[in-house]
Amino acid sequence: MANGEAEVRNKKVLLKHFITGFPRESDMELVESDTVRLKVPEGSTAVLLKNLYLSCDPYMRFRMSKHVEPSFVPDFTPGEVISGSGVGKVVDSKHPDFKEGDYVWGMTGWEEYSLITSPEGLVKIKYIDVPLSYYTGLLGMPGFTAYIGFFEICKPKQGEFVFISAASGAVGQLVGQYAKLTGCYVVGSAGSDEKVSLLKHKFGFDDAFNYKKENDLDAALKRCFPEGIDIYFENVGGAMLDAVLLNMRLHGRISACGMISQYNLEEHEGVRNLLSILAKRIRMEGFVVFDHYHNYSEFVEYTVSRLKEGKITYLEDVAEGLEKASGALIGLFYGRNLGKQLVVVARQ
Amino acid sequence: MANGEAEVRNKKVLLKHFITGFPRESDMELVESDTVRLKVPEGSTAVLLKNLYLSCDPYMRFRMSKHVEPSFVPDFTPGEVISGSGVGKVVDSKHPDFKEGDYVWGMTGWEEYSLITSPEGLVKIKYIDVPLSYYTGLLGMPGFTAYIGFFEICKPKQGEFVFISAASGAVGQLVGQYAKLTGCYVVGSAGSDEKVSLLKHKFGFDDAFNYKKENDLDAALKRCFPEGIDIYFENVGGAMLDAVLLNMRLHGRISACGMISQYNLEEHEGVRNLLSILAKRIRMEGFVVFDHYHNYSEFVEYTVSRLKEGKITYLEDVAEGLEKASGALIGLFYGRNLGKQLVVVARQ
Repeated sequence: MANGEAEVRNKKVLLKHFITGFPRESDMELVESDTVRLKVPEGSTAVLLKNLYLSCDPYMRFRMSKHVEPSFVPDFTPGEVISGSGVGKVVDSKHPDFKEGDYVWGMTGWEEYSLITSPEGLVKIKYIDVPLSYYTGLLGMPGFTAYIGFFEICKPKQGEFVFISAASGAVGQLVGQYAKLTGCYVVGSAGSDEKVSLLKHKFGFDDAFNYKKENDLDAALKRCFPEGIDIYFENVGGAMLDAVLLNMRLHGRISACGMISQYNLEEHEGVRNLLSILAKRIRMEGFVVFDHYHNYSEFVEYTVSRLKEGKITYLEDVAEGLEKASGALIGLFYGRNLGKQLVVVARQ
Repeated sequence: MANGEAEVRNKKVLLKHFITGFPRESDMELVESDTVRLKVPEGSTAVLLKNLYLSCDPYMRFRMSKHVEPSFVPDFTPGEVISGSGVGKVVDSKHPDFKEGDYVWGMTGWEEYSLITSPEGLVKIKYIDVPLSYYTGLLGMPGFTAYIGFFEICKPKQGEFVFISAASGAVGQLVGQYAKLTGCYVVGSAGSDEKVSLLKHKFGFDDAFNYKKENDLDAALKRCFPEGIDIYFENVGGAMLDAVLLNMRLHGRISACGMISQYNLEEHEGVRNLLSILAKRIRMEGFVVFDHYHNYSEFVEYTVSRLKEGKITYLEDVAEGLEKASGALIGLFYGRNLGKQLVVVARQ
């Protein structure tokens, strides 16, 4: 345990340079810093975290490229530590809201210890009787994203037809379960037979298909939704979105959460079927969960209670150690992860 | 005047066959029917209209092609009279809500006299102290579309930046004026310098540009909106939508009213910048005014009062006689009309 006198060398993952195209492990680097004291400097209101679990999220790809105009998240700085959502334990605090021993989640560094100079963005973890790693996913940013995107943006009704792309991922698996709890008919797409099997047999989807085995996505959707789709939870973009637009029902809703198929392309695919938005009175809406933090407690109460009742299942793909972090992040863009991808830095 | 004994030959415009690509005058035909009695048959609850003004609307293009799946409006029937929104005078009525001499607007035939067997869809005209032709546009379907699309879908706030494409058309000219009345900054695009001049000098837009003279739509929008666009009233689709997406502001709204640039294309243009919807939390929403008839009175009161106060200006492009109807409709897709295109069948 930290005691204010301890000194450590701090391992950290840096972005070496801005990138274009698919990220590679060689774009990042694991380095060891000079010795640092495990103590918040005097006169500061910072919090010092020991990082336990780090979240690998597709949106982090945006931060690895240089943007001329500001993106919705700031670009990383080459040569500096990568940041992302994670779970940590407070080692020292000079902020009145946090004390040593607290568990928190929020934006932290991809390193063993992080000095958080604006701890107002950290969330103190209320329920520690569930695995703490869940706060990188089910009970953290991706789970909250699923909750807001499904309930707030899609406004689902019982009996509606729901389609989810990248459905076995951190967000998709939960959206599907929320939709089942709401009484919807739920179909997901994923990129392997193993993931499809998970959707059907572990997460309780009504149906699922492997998009890589479908020659005609429009036909696949017509097979799964002979009556059409009321709600599309969009995680992939591109050709899938184009096919979905052809299969939406009147007054359908598309929650634009992610478009992972497009993130590494220099030129994005063109989507041709936007006339459907007009003819079918579709609402397509982008959202970013940072705008909705006032709903976080509501989300946690809803989700934790159903988790404890056994009504929600959750699957993690765990990379052990910071050494594996860059590979784990990159794996997202090749669909290597099975469930929520996270990195264990330390278990307590 | 009709007297129940009168008989006439009824001129009408037929669609000869379903079409692909741009419509041509030769796809339609003006014919004269056998003699018809100007009397609603006994036992019916129909209304017989003398058609005065017919509205030429871009959405009518959809009805000229055969759709395998139902479109948002039914296809026309080849060999039968074209229908559309129009203004008429009741010649005979067996419906309790209408009596001889009433002026109405609603769906009618492109012919001199129409027997309306479901007159529940007709709207009785309350204000006849404004030009009756206005009920094909300003006070009819296009005007109501502008009102719903701007106020209900875009939910504008004072000071916001509004962009309107096809801005000198029936809908666009009114959206721009509603936006000015709301205290917004308004820019429109149109396809000729004459139209651009109208936007700036007749309709009170803050700025306007001729999209045919811009090599780079993105640059044109950046010039007009250095701070970005809060509201885009979408009438054209395709390349313009793609450029707009790059220039939207956070939490922007796109009201998808029409996509006229795409209606005659066998393969629609691809829109590549949909990632903006996500990153900027944009809401893009299609709507069809038929869903909003409960707001019609509110719209008419708002618009007529401002018209009478001189706060709203309105421009019509009038084709005289059913002989000119097919050419007037086709002209929409070449941008030939200056203001709302309509056809006069009779003036009273």
